[in-house]
Amino acid sequence: MERVAVMGAGSWGTTFAKVLADAGTDVVLWARRAEVADEITRSRVNSDYLPGTKLPANLVATHDPEKALDGAQAVVLGVPSQTLRTNLAEWRPLLPAGATLVSLAKGVELGTLKRMSEVVREVADVPEDQVAVVSGPNLAKEIAAEQPTATVIACIDHDRAVDLQHACSTPYFRPYTNVDVVGCELGGACKNVIALACGMAAGLGFGDNTMASIITRGLAETARLGAALGADPLTFAGLAGLGDLVATCASPLSRNRSFGERLGRGDTVAQAQEAAHGQVAEGVKSCSSIRELAARLGVDMPITDGVHRVCHEGLDPRLLTAALLERERKAERQ
Amino acid sequence: MERVAVMGAGSWGTTFAKVLADAGTDVVLWARRAEVADEITRSRVNSDYLPGTKLPANLVATHDPEKALDGAQAVVLGVPSQTLRTNLAEWRPLLPAGATLVSLAKGVELGTLKRMSEVVREVADVPEDQVAVVSGPNLAKEIAAEQPTATVIACIDHDRAVDLQHACSTPYFRPYTNVDVVGCELGGACKNVIALACGMAAGLGFGDNTMASIITRGLAETARLGAALGADPLTFAGLAGLGDLVATCASPLSRNRSFGERLGRGDTVAQAQEAAHGQVAEGVKSCSSIRELAARLGVDMPITDGVHRVCHEGLDPRLLTAALLERERKAERQ
Repeated sequence: MERVAVMGAGSWGTTFAKVLADAGTDVVLWARRAEVADEITRSRVNSDYLPGTKLPANLVATHDPEKALDGAQAVVLGVPSQTLRTNLAEWRPLLPAGATLVSLAKGVELGTLKRMSEVVREVADVPEDQVAVVSGPNLAKEIAAEQPTATVIACIDHDRAVDLQHACSTPYFRPYTNVDVVGCELGGACKNVIALACGMAAGLGFGDNTMASIITRGLAETARLGAALGADPLTFAGLAGLGDLVATCASPLSRNRSFGERLGRGDTVAQAQEAAHGQVAEGVKSCSSIRELAARLGVDMPITDGVHRVCHEGLDPRLLTAALLERERKAERQ
Repeated sequence: MERVAVMGAGSWGTTFAKVLADAGTDVVLWARRAEVADEITRSRVNSDYLPGTKLPANLVATHDPEKALDGAQAVVLGVPSQTLRTNLAEWRPLLPAGATLVSLAKGVELGTLKRMSEVVREVADVPEDQVAVVSGPNLAKEIAAEQPTATVIACIDHDRAVDLQHACSTPYFRPYTNVDVVGCELGGACKNVIALACGMAAGLGFGDNTMASIITRGLAETARLGAALGADPLTFAGLAGLGDLVATCASPLSRNRSFGERLGRGDTVAQAQEAAHGQVAEGVKSCSSIRELAARLGVDMPITDGVHRVCHEGLDPRLLTAALLERERKAERQ
């Protein structure tokens, strides 16, 4: 794999492009806004989304999707999960035949209830083995600072995952392959919702016991949903399950956790959004689609349900936390 | 269960005695030092081990083990794991026949490589079904502050676990029962070692991605040891496994994590011990006994092995972290 396009110059897209470039792969990074591409080309910095990181010289940036996609053997999709469908539909005529399509987005699409790899397959009209996802304990700012990090590249075509693994292996970034795409994607989607719940508990003044209980039960409800969708239960104990969940829930760098903290301290969703420069945390949207998916499959997800009710039905977060901790249960497995 | 003795007035023993008293159970708390018992009796405070917490009026403290143990239906052992054998041997003639013996200690005994429940059975000469353990995401200071917390009471005799559950259920403390004593104990013992490794990484300046990777791999090696000893793999995904591990590794309140941070910043074990008021973190001892147990069973535990080498063989923590992140692995499950 010699040439890769990264579509989307947010913090994770830009960081992943840097990783590829540091691994010696030719990368073109596409930015939605021309001024972002210009700044990267001119000064090797993306000051809006990744301030403080000097980007490598072999990372080319452009505002032109045709230029970005031309000749790419892999196309990395770094746009938000709820706009992925629209963006990809625009790019579809430009996608090189046979290229691996790689989703960095984590979420379940509102309305269709599809995972990101399903959206990619449908819109790009490619077979399942051509789509890969990247998931793991991957806080972009830490990777950009070249802190040692492990991640998972999942694709049902193991050889394709290995090609991608080689294209992005650096001394600070260690990708492992996995064939369980469903499990890796669900881990990534559900953790944003659990991180919102952890943030709410922190905002209410609760400490690490409560956070650890929410993480434990959150992973259990994620694994229940995974089982209903055919995921491998062991995936949830790995980097894309537990690893990603812990990094997101424990980190003050996590947008979802910070957003939840504001809700826990009494902010409305609109106030929290304003404080987050107009951005709604991904979990605020995903909680509704995941909840609907769980309901369709008859899976009990009390934390996801509670987060939805806080974000969209005005439930007091204090009542959510109380309800989670006061559920009547006698033996741990019941 | 109407009368319970708690033997040991450290922070966790004192907190657990408060929980029992708040649940309406008659409690006598034994303190090794007469002045601690006197202070609790006189002013309802244990200023050395639980400053700032007003203890309930129905909690009786004593320095006399005979007075504490007389008529107790359960004896809760709140002494450190490496002194449990000696303490219990002294108390043995005073133990009421048939009383449930409950271990709060987390560790594996040096030399014998026995879990705490095994030490209790051996020294007290009681059948396995008379011994219970308490384990979970239980930072004492948060429970003392009555923050909502879940825990696990494990005993192979389910009815005995239920009796104990009723004796310590309060609105802020929710115990669940479990019959997998081995799994719950191993989760509690190994997490101290993993917390030391997380602390070292933090002391070296690594962030939440690294911490999450160490937690994920640490739980995996704990589960491997558990499998070799007949534990239920699901226990490690629950409160006494993942829950306890996350609370301990994420919390600045954790002694093991703080101790590891000092080692990561370059302190020797002796310097870190001095900073911890002369106390060595439990994981510093347990890493050696767990490593030896793993070696005997042929189980690979690279984090535990590395922590032992840092604590007892002078390995630079920087090399431990590098080694953990640079192990050659291709697929996640290999």
